[in-house]
Amino acid sequence: MHIRRDHGGDLDRVRRAGEDWLDLSTGINPRPYPVPPLPDEAWATLPTQSAIAALTGAAAAAYGAHVAPVPLAGAQAAIQIVPRLAAPGQARVLGPTYNEHAAALALQGWRVATVDRIEALAGADLAVIVNPNNPDGRHDPPERILDLAPRVGLLVVDESFVDPRPELSVVPWLGRGPGNVVVLRSFGKFYGLAGLRLGFALAGDTLAHRIAELAGPWAVSGPAIAVGRMALADRGWADRTRQRLGADAARLDRLAGLAGWTLVGGTPLFRTYETGDALAAQQNLARARIWSRIFPYSTGWLRLGLPGREADWERLHDALAGQRE
Amino acid sequence: MHIRRDHGGDLDRVRRAGEDWLDLSTGINPRPYPVPPLPDEAWATLPTQSAIAALTGAAAAAYGAHVAPVPLAGAQAAIQIVPRLAAPGQARVLGPTYNEHAAALALQGWRVATVDRIEALAGADLAVIVNPNNPDGRHDPPERILDLAPRVGLLVVDESFVDPRPELSVVPWLGRGPGNVVVLRSFGKFYGLAGLRLGFALAGDTLAHRIAELAGPWAVSGPAIAVGRMALADRGWADRTRQRLGADAARLDRLAGLAGWTLVGGTPLFRTYETGDALAAQQNLARARIWSRIFPYSTGWLRLGLPGREADWERLHDALAGQRE
Repeated sequence: MHIRRDHGGDLDRVRRAGEDWLDLSTGINPRPYPVPPLPDEAWATLPTQSAIAALTGAAAAAYGAHVAPVPLAGAQAAIQIVPRLAAPGQARVLGPTYNEHAAALALQGWRVATVDRIEALAGADLAVIVNPNNPDGRHDPPERILDLAPRVGLLVVDESFVDPRPELSVVPWLGRGPGNVVVLRSFGKFYGLAGLRLGFALAGDTLAHRIAELAGPWAVSGPAIAVGRMALADRGWADRTRQRLGADAARLDRLAGLAGWTLVGGTPLFRTYETGDALAAQQNLARARIWSRIFPYSTGWLRLGLPGREADWERLHDALAGQRE
Repeated sequence: MHIRRDHGGDLDRVRRAGEDWLDLSTGINPRPYPVPPLPDEAWATLPTQSAIAALTGAAAAAYGAHVAPVPLAGAQAAIQIVPRLAAPGQARVLGPTYNEHAAALALQGWRVATVDRIEALAGADLAVIVNPNNPDGRHDPPERILDLAPRVGLLVVDESFVDPRPELSVVPWLGRGPGNVVVLRSFGKFYGLAGLRLGFALAGDTLAHRIAELAGPWAVSGPAIAVGRMALADRGWADRTRQRLGADAARLDRLAGLAGWTLVGGTPLFRTYETGDALAAQQNLARARIWSRIFPYSTGWLRLGLPGREADWERLHDALAGQRE
């Protein structure tokens, strides 16, 4: 199996020094949670257990969890750990989706198959669902996902993009049902702070303990702890951001319509469009120094993140309006 | 084998809210590299390949490396990865030393033995030398360490405390001799920024590639990259810090003499003393709200890091002068 490890956020593959690009190749909120001044200790000392407890408490409250979230250096760090939670066997990934799941599983010796229906995950030793999915926005209600748990060895639910739609999360059920479910959460995408490297794995006690053990001590930086605990406790910011992201996603869909593109799906953090010719569409945007994401498995799909500043919206507008010419 | 995972830096086990403690339980430089204002991108966007390349270039120059350092979230993250670089077998650790090596190896299925002479490492499938060693400061010249490489499967050299004495490092030989040597470097200890979570693994190409693969993408945060590349390029600060640490270590030894303690050994970042009764000595210091490190394998040893502010030195002076009474 050939596994591609290309990503969004790879702008430096094309950018030359001094060029001013608008990077829409990721699904990261372009209007980040404002980073406050941090206490000197956040930088200088090893993170203390009490600081980590404050972070995980804020995360549990924000996510509606009855289990203790395990803090990790981004959802990616959780993806690296998942393949080590069970002896390698047959893994199935509901796809197409974020390619690091299959890559990390294969690296650890799992046989990996991609399936296109949730029912086809049943019987796997390890099953991965990204919910809502990247890049097509496909999503399932928590009940449907949890129904699968008794029929697989380990059920991995990647909720990296669920923050704008918390009602889709299975987190509130953890610790109360089957003990074979691991949920991955990203901090950096919704809070617009991907550089911070913060995420969480959530699971029942036995699995959570094993994840923490594999991550080792001090897996998360002092700045990530300090910013994360403040941001996750700030419900007002989260509510306003959900509203804004919804409105901005609708605005992006209208702009895409100017180019004649139709919505495949997405989340409020990114939108995937059928363009007819993804490579040509990407190249046209690149001429306007706008970087987008296309996919090896589709000749038509192109994914855009949200612009942040009004000037960025106008730049995208002009580029998309010009696509029809 | 019972493996203890207690650490220095565990002050919140004893501190009650509101109490003003002086934490000397770690070997972290108490006068950190000044954190400059960081660009918004360091927080908001995924670290780019070019930013990571600038960091690893600065690290290679600072460490005298002819191989490309692999950036990781602290030397601890490297310790978590080392046990996965070969199939588990017989590991030997030159000890007593930092306990996370044995813990991480055992967790991955290695049989771990601690040996007390460097020659006894020969024949191991994986050998660990912390050089200079924590907590006793034992050290060997690079030639002696490299002599061991042909006689073990994988040779792991933890140089977390080598920055004050760069002439002890084997890094300049990597890529030019045996390909089975991995060196771990800590950024946070010498630069006083343990919260940042930055360290490096250095090895020949094949091993380095495997380490990077196991770490996964975006293993290091944007703030760590931004601060690390500046600090590692600042040779003037490093030179001044080496001088200051040396003088401060000598000053600490004089204070310890006031309590009748004798030096076991150490590095300029920490000193380990024979106190006669380590538990009583720790408790006496704790009455002055000074936290220190003692060890399960010694009834007499107590380790102190360096005080930072002059007021901290005076506080330690008074506490140690009172120990004789």
